Amino acid sequence: MRVSVIGGSVPSEAGLDAAREVGRLLGERGHTVVCGGLGGVMEAACRGASDAGGHTIGILPGEDRRAANEYVDTAIATGLGHARNALVVLNGDAVVAIDGAGGTLSEVGFSSVYDRAIAGIDAPDAPHVADVETPSDAVDYVEANVD
Amino acid sequence: MRVSVIGGSVPSEAGLDAAREVGRLLGERGHTVVCGGLGGVMEAACRGASDAGGHTIGILPGEDRRAANEYVDTAIATGLGHARNALVVLNGDAVVAIDGAGGTLSEVGFSSVYDRAIAGIDAPDAPHVADVETPSDAVDYVEANVD
Amino acid sequence: MRVSVIGGSVPSEAGLDAAREVGRLLGERGHTVVCGGLGGVMEAACRGASDAGGHTIGILPGEDRRAANEYVDTAIATGLGHARNALVVLNGDAVVAIDGAGGTLSEVGFSSVYDRAIAGIDAPDAPHVADVETPSDAVDYVEANVD
Amino acid sequence: MRVSVIGGSVPSEAGLDAAREVGRLLGERGHTVVCGGLGGVMEAACRGASDAGGHTIGILPGEDRRAANEYVDTAIATGLGHARNALVVLNGDAVVAIDGAGGTLSEVGFSSVYDRAIAGIDAPDAPHVADVETPSDAVDYVEANVD
Repeated sequence: MRVSVIGGSVPSEAGLDAAREVGRLLGERGHTVVCGGLGGVMEAACRGASDAGGHTIGILPGEDRRAANEYVDTAIATGLGHARNALVVLNGDAVVAIDGAGGTLSEVGFSSVYDRAIAGIDAPDAPHVADVETPSDAVDYVEANVD
Repeated sequence: MRVSVIGGSVPSEAGLDAAREVGRLLGERGHTVVCGGLGGVMEAACRGASDAGGHTIGILPGEDRRAANEYVDTAIATGLGHARNALVVLNGDAVVAIDGAGGTLSEVGFSSVYDRAIAGIDAPDAPHVADVETPSDAVDYVEANVD
Repeated sequence: MRVSVIGGSVPSEAGLDAAREVGRLLGERGHTVVCGGLGGVMEAACRGASDAGGHTIGILPGEDRRAANEYVDTAIATGLGHARNALVVLNGDAVVAIDGAGGTLSEVGFSSVYDRAIAGIDAPDAPHVADVETPSDAVDYVEANVD
Repeated sequence: MRVSVIGGSVPSEAGLDAAREVGRLLGERGHTVVCGGLGGVMEAACRGASDAGGHTIGILPGEDRRAANEYVDTAIATGLGHARNALVVLNGDAVVAIDGAGGTLSEVGFSSVYDRAIAGIDAPDAPHVADVETPSDAVDYVEANVD
């Protein structure tokens, strides 16, 4: 399946480690990582997935797909600015949120709009987010909650 | 100024009353109401503004601008689906959130992304939202926090 | 009704004159001008409509609605870049095209997609565009071809 | 490189043959096919590329990526409706247009907006489109005109 990994572009060190580990686990288990294509949590998740031989998709806000981080396999330029956040969530079957601020919060909202299961590690709080402790818990949760 | 009023399409009775009163106060004070153009909080806010002679703008998810509630003066069809939530926030100078679920949460997130002052009445919680009690408090807050 | 006026941002002098006259006629006859909100044909059409007391809507590519030309009454910021061209056409009941290049051509295409009657004055050529000579012909055509 | 193949969803038999051959040649030469992900020219191009072992990307108008034709390797759901046409062009380094009507014309327009070299086979006419006879001519043209 595809899992959207969302989170801040300037996360804590712990957030970066978690994102890379989430990416690695997703890649190992044969899942594709979808993200916003830029830095921070997005890059760390792609790097982890890439280390494990997984496929990564980056859906970018700008018009130039070369803005994608180096671990994105398939970069999609949208030119939509922040409205592209909707597409990041829409293209995953489930979501893992790590750290993050306003942009991540908009994506947490879209995960409810599009009815995507979502696990959060130190993520913006919302009633539909399963608050988990570890990358392994997050990946287990989304695997268990997608048909 | 323009104030985006966001909230659920199926709010509580108290939420509807608050939305209508927020709309009325905004209209009385010469502000324009921006919203998603549909029912619930959106319609109540437009109705209140309209009662007070204010201008209302509805930014719709679909392609048919006739889907707008009857209190929308200027309906904008986007055809963007839920990605239009970004535009609802972008077109206000400040935001009032009332009640609401996932869609509203995405807009609360965008209010941080676009750096809009936001007051919330029984709204999704987030660090940048000023939690207020009454419609009057909400309108006072946004008036005081826009340059 | 609403009429989208589309055309180049750097048109010929004749194009500017035609756009202003189309705007003036639309305003006189009680129609609203919808456009992309920027300069050239867009500004001239808004100016003409404004001179005649008509309402004007500008749907902008960027995030700042202050980028609208001074004759736009209701500016809508989209942040969508060129994808906003779809919205310019979608928000008119019919279209008048004047002069213009690639961006205008994309809008001519959307007028077919959304089944909008379209008249063109020195506009990009396409089978569904009614090629007319004068602003008056253009306005007559769209009035006659909208239900 | 990536080449966007655009064209009608109900093309002529000759159009379908041309699209499949364009896809095949692109795949053989190591290029990725980008398209709107649905039927007609889009499906034929993906099928041709797939036959030749090439990678295909389908950028869909709707919210469900399962609407992609069976030859799409990476499906991107946008939920943007026809505004997604901008993204189809934006994600190619060059464009081949085959047959097609209004939607294709909007994409021909965007190929000028985004400054993409474009070859057309029985495609909507525009000054910036290189009118060619055969699939091989089309692929040669785009290869020669991208840096």
